[in-house]
Amino acid sequence: MTARALVTDIDGTLTDRTRRISLGAIEAIRRLVDGGIPVVLASGNTLCFMDGLARMIGTDGSVIAENGGVWHHGYLGEPVVTGDRRVPLAAFEALREHFAGRGVFLDLFSHGLRHADVAFARTVSVDEVRAVLRTHPVRVLDTGFAIHLQQEGVSKATALAALARAMGMTPADFVAIGDSENDTEMIKTAGAGAAVGNAVPGAKAAADYVATAPFGDGFVEAVDHYFS
Amino acid sequence: MTARALVTDIDGTLTDRTRRISLGAIEAIRRLVDGGIPVVLASGNTLCFMDGLARMIGTDGSVIAENGGVWHHGYLGEPVVTGDRRVPLAAFEALREHFAGRGVFLDLFSHGLRHADVAFARTVSVDEVRAVLRTHPVRVLDTGFAIHLQQEGVSKATALAALARAMGMTPADFVAIGDSENDTEMIKTAGAGAAVGNAVPGAKAAADYVATAPFGDGFVEAVDHYFS
Repeated sequence: MTARALVTDIDGTLTDRTRRISLGAIEAIRRLVDGGIPVVLASGNTLCFMDGLARMIGTDGSVIAENGGVWHHGYLGEPVVTGDRRVPLAAFEALREHFAGRGVFLDLFSHGLRHADVAFARTVSVDEVRAVLRTHPVRVLDTGFAIHLQQEGVSKATALAALARAMGMTPADFVAIGDSENDTEMIKTAGAGAAVGNAVPGAKAAADYVATAPFGDGFVEAVDHYFS
Repeated sequence: MTARALVTDIDGTLTDRTRRISLGAIEAIRRLVDGGIPVVLASGNTLCFMDGLARMIGTDGSVIAENGGVWHHGYLGEPVVTGDRRVPLAAFEALREHFAGRGVFLDLFSHGLRHADVAFARTVSVDEVRAVLRTHPVRVLDTGFAIHLQQEGVSKATALAALARAMGMTPADFVAIGDSENDTEMIKTAGAGAAVGNAVPGAKAAADYVATAPFGDGFVEAVDHYFS
């Protein structure tokens, strides 16, 4: 393929386990952007958190936040919210009741800042969360940094399709790079998908290219593979 | 002085004019943090925007946002809001009426995300803004990136005093580095203050050390001066 744009996960892909971003990854992104290749950041973080990262890294500010629940085209683009946040909130309340009976209290991350999904700390078993929510129309995502509840049918891939259209492209024009479960559809939908060395088996299985190096070094390796 | 901590502005101090952060500045901050020197980011940006930067740079997440209007100690610290946002909002409405009469419409930046101040684009004369608001109990700050209206008595310096207390220190334990008008009190209040080479005359006049280099290189120069 001839890659026209890049979409990349942040935590675990551009950053190390402590969420510090790789300076090599920033340099690689700036080289692409300055060379006319748009770079979209796609993460489970909130939109305003990601606006900070996009500004500091130096992209045009097009981001996919909340694992696809909200995105905007360009730093000043109007946020587009997908899905209905009441759905994951109802599922979260069911979890809160379930675990409260066991003396475990779950607290929402950045509640007032989220438009579409809910996120909470990984203090409980993800398998148990999935079991409790099997009748709810939500997807349970474990990013390795938090557990996210997402309305069925919302993902980084669905948001990428909408954002690509706004950019005058299609997902086939993109290279996607990620490391975790919530990157798998995006890696499959893009024209080409890559996984960093520390990626989960599912992300590696979905990828066309699997980097040898982990984290930011693996990101740079994948960028070099597709764009140089 | 023996500097125990650092507080630094972001835009124009850690970043270039396009708001891309200097990789050397990130490395300098990580060296301090890993050496046990807390680094506080202080800016006119919103709290959640700054949370993203703090995470990616790799500090403990203590930030002063909205030019002192809100701060928290550590990434998960409860936000502490200073001042009453209704005061700058009333002043902003007066500006909107004044300039609307001239066919100029002012729009608030990140309205729903701000706790204490208001910010808008630099599309009008700051001097005229000051003239219109001379009877309002607000300070008009021009950061070079936006115009901010702040309740009188709120500044990065007042927030630094409160945050330092929460950290078991005083402003005298801090080195402060900045470039613009809204950094001047912080530079004066801290134990030692530095200005980067691109700083406005007022910030340079208030500083104990003025870096030769501008932007991130000047920041690194000031950090080396005080911490090596």
